[in-house]
Amino acid sequence: MKNIAISAAALALALPLSAQVVPSPNEIVNAAVPEEWVAIPAEDLLVMTLAPDADGNARQVVIQLMPAPFSQGWVHNIRLFARSGWYDGITVNRVQDNYVVQWGDPNYDNPETGGEAKPLPEGLRVMGEEDYSTPTSIISIHERPAESISNSHRSRGDAYAEFTGFVRGWPVARDHQRDWPTHCYGMVGVGRNYSPDTGSGAELYTVIGHAPRHLDRNIALVGRVIAGMEHLSSLPRGSGALGFYTAEEAAKRTPILSVRVAADLPEGERPLFEYLSTESDTFAAYAEARANRRDPFFIAPAGGADICNIPVPVRPFEYAE
Amino acid sequence: MKNIAISAAALALALPLSAQVVPSPNEIVNAAVPEEWVAIPAEDLLVMTLAPDADGNARQVVIQLMPAPFSQGWVHNIRLFARSGWYDGITVNRVQDNYVVQWGDPNYDNPETGGEAKPLPEGLRVMGEEDYSTPTSIISIHERPAESISNSHRSRGDAYAEFTGFVRGWPVARDHQRDWPTHCYGMVGVGRNYSPDTGSGAELYTVIGHAPRHLDRNIALVGRVIAGMEHLSSLPRGSGALGFYTAEEAAKRTPILSVRVAADLPEGERPLFEYLSTESDTFAAYAEARANRRDPFFIAPAGGADICNIPVPVRPFEYAE
Repeated sequence: MKNIAISAAALALALPLSAQVVPSPNEIVNAAVPEEWVAIPAEDLLVMTLAPDADGNARQVVIQLMPAPFSQGWVHNIRLFARSGWYDGITVNRVQDNYVVQWGDPNYDNPETGGEAKPLPEGLRVMGEEDYSTPTSIISIHERPAESISNSHRSRGDAYAEFTGFVRGWPVARDHQRDWPTHCYGMVGVGRNYSPDTGSGAELYTVIGHAPRHLDRNIALVGRVIAGMEHLSSLPRGSGALGFYTAEEAAKRTPILSVRVAADLPEGERPLFEYLSTESDTFAAYAEARANRRDPFFIAPAGGADICNIPVPVRPFEYAE
Repeated sequence: MKNIAISAAALALALPLSAQVVPSPNEIVNAAVPEEWVAIPAEDLLVMTLAPDADGNARQVVIQLMPAPFSQGWVHNIRLFARSGWYDGITVNRVQDNYVVQWGDPNYDNPETGGEAKPLPEGLRVMGEEDYSTPTSIISIHERPAESISNSHRSRGDAYAEFTGFVRGWPVARDHQRDWPTHCYGMVGVGRNYSPDTGSGAELYTVIGHAPRHLDRNIALVGRVIAGMEHLSSLPRGSGALGFYTAEEAAKRTPILSVRVAADLPEGERPLFEYLSTESDTFAAYAEARANRRDPFFIAPAGGADICNIPVPVRPFEYAE
């Protein structure tokens, strides 16, 4: 935890030959071949522009929406909210330390603001609680054999599921009947009221603390923040119940100027991101290295890692000219 | 994740009789009897005063130091650093999203700042790597039977250890030979250089993201932040390698005005905190409820919770007059 920004190459010179430098998880990822990276479709990227910060710096957040078979009804709604401009002008209303940042219409369900709730757009789908997860048969039939879900980090189990692994770039948990995405840091979910409400997608949150896996199968996960996370995670915490900003703190509600589906932006303005295929050899090596750190700083490899401590590598890219 | 600040009592009126309100984990804790709360000794509390924020608001962080048998050499050093005034005037030098906030002498090991490193005080202990953990025999002999470590959340295992539980208010992991404290959100550890260096306590960090349990047994944990965590977790992220502030960002280094052992403060200025005994019946009920959420928002209890998703309740108290 000291200044280990010293390059691995420089360090090797100072170490005895017996202590050869082993690549870190990030170095393993950096050595992936181009074919192991998967471009994220522009239809699956949301560009959320916050009001500039106090110093006038721009703040942009990019969210990757979840692919089938998970949460597609809510994902449909979210594209609809974005394309109808409904999200433009909403605010960040809740920042609870070690839990979530949540944004939506500040006047919805909030007698304190005194304003009127924004009417919802037409065409929203209403999802059921069974849609928080999918039958295990779906992925094994349509996507890939269940047994190829990575289990390299399963040595000692998971507290919330019989099995965890990765599918198409996403962390997933499984019991004998159902599969579901997991509430890891940066994952984006759909705020809802009490059951049987399942939320529309008008109100979204992202995880800014330890993985609240107790929310798995209780709320729809629809994506993850892949850029600009720090613009949300470093916001001032709300002092109201559950981290909501109180009426006195109204000025702390960060305005969301716009949310756009990247596919709708002019080609030159679309962000381009790719993820490391979780079905690739490099991802398997990376996950193994996360579970058994052997790079120079470490003295005791853990022998395991939980699903949320193996973040799927995502990076921006540019098309070759 | 909606505005669930509605009181549970109000809600009960709207629910059918079959859906009786079950207490939340926090409600279980609030019903603990006074004897289940343990006052934290003033000798184990550090009061860290940061420079006021941009709006002039005071920022105080309270850290609880870890009791025996864990990390006592480093804890000794930290009291020495505090009592000699060595920490006064150091700064927060690193804020890495989803990882750690780290503070220390900005001139130590940093050619960019151009200043000279502060000389260390006399009397520091030098700890060994074996001190990152303790033999399992220590707690079972001197503290309490190993089998009484709570295992209510063990239903499906832990990725990093054979066993996890709580001892004297702290989260602990165990294999067949050793016990060690775990890197949960808010835990405080000792920065170090490459092995065999084990760090003195001059440089400290706290976890501001998903539990980096791969650091367990690789770095000394010495305590946890029990108040004012938001003053650290919401700091602007550093743009340098590993989240260090670069030379251009020097102004972002938050000054630490002073760090005091609470026992050294005038009686009226000492913060008073207590934790819920992890050996109490209420803690057992709380941990079980965290693993199986049945309060009204939840529809699918997880059937488990990892050690870092069962934060030990800590609260301020006042002596009765």
